[in-house]
Amino acid sequence: MKKSVGIIGANGYTGSELVRLLAFHPNIELKFLYSRSNSGVKISDLYPDLDSVCDLVLENTLRPVDILFLCLPHTESAKWLAERPADDEVLIIDLGNDFRLSTHFGSRDFVYGLPEIHFNEIQNSKSIANPGCFATAIQLALLPLAKENLLKDVYTTGITGSTGAGQSLQPTTHFTWRNDNISAYKTLNHQHVDEILKQINSLNNQEVELNFVPWRGDFARGIFTSSIISCDLELEKIYSLYKDFYKDSPFVKVSEKPIDMKQVVNTNFCTIQIEKKGNKIAIHSTIDNLLKGASGQAVQNMNIANGWEQNLGLNLKPIAF
Amino acid sequence: MKKSVGIIGANGYTGSELVRLLAFHPNIELKFLYSRSNSGVKISDLYPDLDSVCDLVLENTLRPVDILFLCLPHTESAKWLAERPADDEVLIIDLGNDFRLSTHFGSRDFVYGLPEIHFNEIQNSKSIANPGCFATAIQLALLPLAKENLLKDVYTTGITGSTGAGQSLQPTTHFTWRNDNISAYKTLNHQHVDEILKQINSLNNQEVELNFVPWRGDFARGIFTSSIISCDLELEKIYSLYKDFYKDSPFVKVSEKPIDMKQVVNTNFCTIQIEKKGNKIAIHSTIDNLLKGASGQAVQNMNIANGWEQNLGLNLKPIAF
Amino acid sequence: MKKSVGIIGANGYTGSELVRLLAFHPNIELKFLYSRSNSGVKISDLYPDLDSVCDLVLENTLRPVDILFLCLPHTESAKWLAERPADDEVLIIDLGNDFRLSTHFGSRDFVYGLPEIHFNEIQNSKSIANPGCFATAIQLALLPLAKENLLKDVYTTGITGSTGAGQSLQPTTHFTWRNDNISAYKTLNHQHVDEILKQINSLNNQEVELNFVPWRGDFARGIFTSSIISCDLELEKIYSLYKDFYKDSPFVKVSEKPIDMKQVVNTNFCTIQIEKKGNKIAIHSTIDNLLKGASGQAVQNMNIANGWEQNLGLNLKPIAF
Amino acid sequence: MKKSVGIIGANGYTGSELVRLLAFHPNIELKFLYSRSNSGVKISDLYPDLDSVCDLVLENTLRPVDILFLCLPHTESAKWLAERPADDEVLIIDLGNDFRLSTHFGSRDFVYGLPEIHFNEIQNSKSIANPGCFATAIQLALLPLAKENLLKDVYTTGITGSTGAGQSLQPTTHFTWRNDNISAYKTLNHQHVDEILKQINSLNNQEVELNFVPWRGDFARGIFTSSIISCDLELEKIYSLYKDFYKDSPFVKVSEKPIDMKQVVNTNFCTIQIEKKGNKIAIHSTIDNLLKGASGQAVQNMNIANGWEQNLGLNLKPIAF
Repeated sequence: MKKSVGIIGANGYTGSELVRLLAFHPNIELKFLYSRSNSGVKISDLYPDLDSVCDLVLENTLRPVDILFLCLPHTESAKWLAERPADDEVLIIDLGNDFRLSTHFGSRDFVYGLPEIHFNEIQNSKSIANPGCFATAIQLALLPLAKENLLKDVYTTGITGSTGAGQSLQPTTHFTWRNDNISAYKTLNHQHVDEILKQINSLNNQEVELNFVPWRGDFARGIFTSSIISCDLELEKIYSLYKDFYKDSPFVKVSEKPIDMKQVVNTNFCTIQIEKKGNKIAIHSTIDNLLKGASGQAVQNMNIANGWEQNLGLNLKPIAF
Repeated sequence: MKKSVGIIGANGYTGSELVRLLAFHPNIELKFLYSRSNSGVKISDLYPDLDSVCDLVLENTLRPVDILFLCLPHTESAKWLAERPADDEVLIIDLGNDFRLSTHFGSRDFVYGLPEIHFNEIQNSKSIANPGCFATAIQLALLPLAKENLLKDVYTTGITGSTGAGQSLQPTTHFTWRNDNISAYKTLNHQHVDEILKQINSLNNQEVELNFVPWRGDFARGIFTSSIISCDLELEKIYSLYKDFYKDSPFVKVSEKPIDMKQVVNTNFCTIQIEKKGNKIAIHSTIDNLLKGASGQAVQNMNIANGWEQNLGLNLKPIAF
Repeated sequence: MKKSVGIIGANGYTGSELVRLLAFHPNIELKFLYSRSNSGVKISDLYPDLDSVCDLVLENTLRPVDILFLCLPHTESAKWLAERPADDEVLIIDLGNDFRLSTHFGSRDFVYGLPEIHFNEIQNSKSIANPGCFATAIQLALLPLAKENLLKDVYTTGITGSTGAGQSLQPTTHFTWRNDNISAYKTLNHQHVDEILKQINSLNNQEVELNFVPWRGDFARGIFTSSIISCDLELEKIYSLYKDFYKDSPFVKVSEKPIDMKQVVNTNFCTIQIEKKGNKIAIHSTIDNLLKGASGQAVQNMNIANGWEQNLGLNLKPIAF
Repeated sequence: MKKSVGIIGANGYTGSELVRLLAFHPNIELKFLYSRSNSGVKISDLYPDLDSVCDLVLENTLRPVDILFLCLPHTESAKWLAERPADDEVLIIDLGNDFRLSTHFGSRDFVYGLPEIHFNEIQNSKSIANPGCFATAIQLALLPLAKENLLKDVYTTGITGSTGAGQSLQPTTHFTWRNDNISAYKTLNHQHVDEILKQINSLNNQEVELNFVPWRGDFARGIFTSSIISCDLELEKIYSLYKDFYKDSPFVKVSEKPIDMKQVVNTNFCTIQIEKKGNKIAIHSTIDNLLKGASGQAVQNMNIANGWEQNLGLNLKPIAF
């Protein structure tokens, strides 16, 4: 029997992306889409690509469901749950950052939903804090080294598509400004750094410093990151650590060939490549920020928490071109 | 039991796009990928998005299959079949233009694979000539009027993504030239005009003149067309003709709201909108040139010819953003 | 001695583009930049490319000048002049559409500022109505035929960059939506059609019908148009008409080779190409919408009205790539 | 009296960009454009934006000139000069990398043409080695710190437009591949690192390690770089060092506000911004790779070597949008 699903904040980018994924998921039934600001509007009127795919109307009332996705602005998920406590048996997957650092909330204890390191906890959990987009790309690039205590100072640059900034109209998402343009933002100060260090420091036995410069890219989807660290291991040995670390992770591909961002766009994959010169290595990683970086990973977590195959509903045709 | 499939010319854009679709198709098994120029190379080495999706190696030998897709340059399909005649029971779907106008070849009689007008013939056919990309977008925009004998002079402009020009390196596909650029090509002289008129004239009882100006667009995927014709019917009446014409066509959406190209990119849909001023109407249509305009429609034809649901393997997540 | 210039509405796209042009113009001095909404702000704080180029501060008071450019939203220029009548000897160049159709205003009689057909009137005028962007591109494509009474029914498609929509944030200028996207707007109903027909009908001795479909393009600058008409003349003869018509027009280039939009971007040129099949011809024209389509043409008009060389301050390096 | 100029390799991107700049330069006369592969072709047939701007025909014979620009592939400049030694009084500006590290060649001793640190030597030189594009952007970001002996380990990521890869057709410059894509290349191994370190180490009294990861961007023009270093100085103090260092450099703008790449595209400017957190600073710099990163800087060097104003012919209208 299918599980029933509700999405809170279905009118945003991550919410609508969940609709695109769940519309074709074999084991679930989309029960309701909640939106305060667009109540009464068909989701396909906001996102015409969903016409003939999902004909649900956004509502501002709740219905009983088995699974609840929260796609709310940061700090709103905690407020939401405080006002509308869900039954303990409802699986809650929060796509915001409210429960990534402080994981306790009422009777719930949120698991950090990065399946590559928390598969077992996710399997038994009813409360999942879905990781951030940059946090996912950077952690997947660094975790195998953290596990070997090989991380100390990390220097990372990452670039993200405009969907990372959400659907609100801003000067930096104006087409005229952003087309053919590159810029830095939140330099050395991105909110995902703490989220990343919390996980990394739980594996690595020395304090890690992550110096991260995020850039705005002139594309809509995707994240590409390069991290430089000192490392004395042979490249071959490093690759074998990575391949071993991810041997049970169907969505992480460790590549010895050059990688590019578009090869993962519109998929739930993360691709990683490592290069070495002298005692420095550079680790490149790339994801689709709305999929492995948000809604795709949320579905992956839902699958795991329900004991289903991880890739259920996630065998997505890459855009490729 | 699954049907076995071979793809001839699997190393090109339409061939690899078929691999992306068929890798997740429930009723078929990809048996072999044929390529003369890239024999011995893994398809995922050419298209790294296919890594973990399809691990087949391109070959230059044939294997017996139930279904054969020909993804060859124009005029090469006829040569291929002349040299390697397939058994009559093999379903052949040709993505080139060899059999769209001259439909007889040896013992085979090719059906023009536009399901919206030839569904029944496709159902019983072993030989399908898959339509061209512009030809699909323009015909779907015009056919309901042709059926009512309402077409006479048609003025169409269409814009296509760079994938329409194939993977060979050309000055007009150099990123530096094409980025932010628009240009016309084959003005009033595109090879799809005859293909379109053949179908339209079989419905319309007066001669139609199609004046078509194709443009190169600064994007990789998609086609958008606008056609202007004289028409005295009320807009409401025209819409009702279109909706009626496409009522059994799951991949054609007739929209009364403004449409845009990206809403169909990475899907098999065609969206159509009509506007009217005075006695002139403009019909806009948009498709993904590699899907409804090529490989997606080929899979749709395969499904119909096998008596399967049209949308099998074609419930694709739109790129949307 | 240099002429003094003021710009009303200097904070918008066409206003700031005038600043870019006039900052290096040898015969003028920028005296003041007027903006109600951004008074007190340095123009280079709004447009950082102007840092080190122009250090003027936007003001909301007027100063006496020889030349006044009005860069106001449509209908605002007439209001402005009604409230703040300028001395008769001040040269006023209006970039809006207030005086393109109704040319009389108080003691002023506005000349339509398309130098290719109104050079003499512009030379002696103190009141110039600068043409619209699409209006410029389409007229330059059609005028030589109008002069020969060869126009009747015209079918035109044009595509424009996002700067054509101005700097306000709108759903259709959101990067996420517009990137890689094409859409139609104001189909058969664009405000420039009347402006075009007024000029064309003054040359052509039969009524012309212009069926124009504008498209939004996924680039920031530029316009490309293709117009189809019936014409029995030989192509060679048509080209000779065009070359003759534009022989004294330094900014119009008639090309017998394929043209593309980027060859005129960041210049004041218009390039035109003609193709023929049967009794139909297609005329392609392309401009930079902010230069020959707005601020560049305004400077060209200023030059002519002052008896200077047309290209003064307009020898611009093309972006080219 | 004007100086005469010849360009060797005028058919490439940097060569044709020199033509765009020199066509409007008041103090020079373009005497000949040399190209082996395109001899006999008008430069405006290769680059139609140059039609009406420069009507020279590419030749494969040399003429006597005052100034010679070499725009040849790397290693070709030395071969050229060995075969065709120019008179000692001819000013030679080499845009390749042949004389950036080994500066002696025959009777000539090449000055490294970064005017911000070698203004005086350039003034008296007849042999100038024009810096590389990334080398320019990264040095301008680091030099003020090098002068204060504040550099040790540097971690830099830079992104470049497709024009950086030249006009040859390559898989990584195919529009279909590059559009919306990001990738790394020559990781920790770019040829400009040695060029940068040579200059930096001549100022800095300790050995510097530069860890540089270059990325390919999905735009045609521009470079953006971010460098992270350890630095205990207050941000205000650092800014004052930079402003002091560049106080006589008209093309370097030190900005305390966020910068973006497009603000310098189609200009000869470099813009620099610095941010600080803890003891780490990030320095962002951005240039147009074909102008300050190549042909624009070459003209700046020519101006200085001739005792002209640095910005002669370089007051370029920014593309801005």
